[in-house]
Amino acid sequence: MNSEKIEIFDTTLRDGEQVPGCKLNTNQKLTIAEKLDELGVDIIEAGFPISSPGDFHSVSEISKLVKNAKVCGLTRANEKDIEAAAEALKLAKRPRIHTGIGTSDSHIKYKFNSTREKIIERATQAVKYAKTFVEDVEFYAEDAGRTDNDFLAQVCEEAIKAGATVLNIPDTTGYCLPEEYGQKIKYLKENVKGIDKAILSCHCHNDLGMATANSIAGVINGARQIECTINGLGERAGNTALEEVVMVLKQHTDLKLHTHINSKMLNYMSVLVSDLMGMPVQPNKAIVGTNAFAHSSGIHQDGVIKNRETYEIIDPADVGVNNSSIVLTARSGRSALAYRFKHIGFDVTKNELDFLYEEFLKIADIKKEVNNDDLGLMIEVFNRKIG
Amino acid sequence: MNSEKIEIFDTTLRDGEQVPGCKLNTNQKLTIAEKLDELGVDIIEAGFPISSPGDFHSVSEISKLVKNAKVCGLTRANEKDIEAAAEALKLAKRPRIHTGIGTSDSHIKYKFNSTREKIIERATQAVKYAKTFVEDVEFYAEDAGRTDNDFLAQVCEEAIKAGATVLNIPDTTGYCLPEEYGQKIKYLKENVKGIDKAILSCHCHNDLGMATANSIAGVINGARQIECTINGLGERAGNTALEEVVMVLKQHTDLKLHTHINSKMLNYMSVLVSDLMGMPVQPNKAIVGTNAFAHSSGIHQDGVIKNRETYEIIDPADVGVNNSSIVLTARSGRSALAYRFKHIGFDVTKNELDFLYEEFLKIADIKKEVNNDDLGLMIEVFNRKIG
Repeated sequence: MNSEKIEIFDTTLRDGEQVPGCKLNTNQKLTIAEKLDELGVDIIEAGFPISSPGDFHSVSEISKLVKNAKVCGLTRANEKDIEAAAEALKLAKRPRIHTGIGTSDSHIKYKFNSTREKIIERATQAVKYAKTFVEDVEFYAEDAGRTDNDFLAQVCEEAIKAGATVLNIPDTTGYCLPEEYGQKIKYLKENVKGIDKAILSCHCHNDLGMATANSIAGVINGARQIECTINGLGERAGNTALEEVVMVLKQHTDLKLHTHINSKMLNYMSVLVSDLMGMPVQPNKAIVGTNAFAHSSGIHQDGVIKNRETYEIIDPADVGVNNSSIVLTARSGRSALAYRFKHIGFDVTKNELDFLYEEFLKIADIKKEVNNDDLGLMIEVFNRKIG
Repeated sequence: MNSEKIEIFDTTLRDGEQVPGCKLNTNQKLTIAEKLDELGVDIIEAGFPISSPGDFHSVSEISKLVKNAKVCGLTRANEKDIEAAAEALKLAKRPRIHTGIGTSDSHIKYKFNSTREKIIERATQAVKYAKTFVEDVEFYAEDAGRTDNDFLAQVCEEAIKAGATVLNIPDTTGYCLPEEYGQKIKYLKENVKGIDKAILSCHCHNDLGMATANSIAGVINGARQIECTINGLGERAGNTALEEVVMVLKQHTDLKLHTHINSKMLNYMSVLVSDLMGMPVQPNKAIVGTNAFAHSSGIHQDGVIKNRETYEIIDPADVGVNNSSIVLTARSGRSALAYRFKHIGFDVTKNELDFLYEEFLKIADIKKEVNNDDLGLMIEVFNRKIG
């Protein structure tokens, strides 16, 4: 099988933690980092060392702990930031410094009050300086999503010349459409001299709800790394959700792209991160929401009972969920009711079911969900009537 | 401006309500229907009348209430379902019956134990029968996402001949990639005879996190209706989120597609539906999450303070949120701190700020979020030191 590997760069502990209410202490970060390593992510972005003494300490401790993944620290394009990251990553087995600068006209003008030429100069100086500490240097072109492709290609070319091993192309504001983002990656693949010396990386935000689709468009068009977080956590509407991109690639074998993630740990990771950060996951969250595998409509339940794949494309066990649940509501049909009766030990005949189903609908129109106790009571009432 | 209108088909009360724990009573449904009408949706799918007496009653009451939107009822492809829907919709000003059948090989074989020929026969009979009651009949080809394009085109052609005004192409399992779904719509536009007599509709599920991107790919390729729910509620990982597709089209004016939604009501609708259904919206939900416009990292805060558009593509007021919040955490920088001090009445000098920022970081490394009380205390301590 001719499938290429996509590197999974987890930034739950950096971009994910950079969220109101999500702050973790060092011990909590170590717990998550250890599990991310076990999950099989390729890179753990552990923090932004210069930003606070606590963050520096965490990156340093994570560097000592992690066995397999690369450990990465974020910096802006200046010496102090890079020195702090290098120091914090000192004991990492496979350290990476992530440095960069805004490249869109909006960032250049309003944020840096600078010019394109000066931005390229600062970018290359930062990469070169980071290279004096570590071999593996990732460069980010902040707001690449709104940077015109010509200038972006120029910046990337210079960053590669300066020694960058990875080029991060962030859609910082979450504005791109999938086709647009895919075309941007394609343009860089085709127009940046020396592009084969570096990996292109997708870093997408979810402001318009398309981070996953954008990241997938990126790898279809030649990127080989996706930056993402557990549960899609991150600034504003968050980053690309790790569990979503991993399962898209796992389900769409036709793309011939794969990751090294142990998908059976996805549900566990979601709960762990949600609990430690105190950030709830909505029930209808793709892959890891509590309803992601729950069926309640009659039409769907009947289909699933006859053949799981009628409505389910993912086997819940593949993401560490024990089984898909059939929930009884006013929208459930006869087959779901019979299935649940059987499950609790009552094999009802067709005639019995006709009667019980009418009773069931009356209860279901009042209650949100009909549980096993209600079913037991229905059987009791039914037996008395015919008894 | 040469922009085409996309019809917004809201199915919060049907596909959205068909969810474990989301059941609404008739009064609650009427509250939501009235507000959906005010929001400007073109079609309200009010329920599945045959499924339970309560649902029948709700569709009937919503039909009487709604002033502008079309009111739609779901049916399977059989006479009893269609009769119930027609009866429930009797008093609607602009009634629509939504009927259909599974068309994928998986559905034909496992769900119906039938053949392609018989499925087409049932489909056309259902559309014809629905037409005896109402003019506006929408046909759904369930699991169209996994139906091969040739057969799907054939089904659509026959449905149009039978009188269907709208063709719903559901990605029932949420499996499609945006390009794939877009190509499917394009194929139908180009290969179905009489396609100009009907509107193609996108009905996407979010199992892999791509419902919004798929719907947008659909309308880019010729569909003119999107089926969606408030907060992306729905079976399993839910349906396309109304607020997301609406804002994608509003932000991407280059697509020359627009809706009639009053986006200023989006935040209100999200809270209303979440409260009535008891379904929480995660903080990092696109457009309507509580963090969707919150900035906490220093780099981002600094950018937003200098110029909102550096990091925000959507003006929060456009979706009914009062202002983007600058939240102070260990990831915040000096400019955010100065901004907040100013906001609470202290104009600090650069030297004062240097001192206060060090103090701030110590507090922020311990607390998740630094609030105005903490800032007041810092000023007090500072004044005592220099006093």
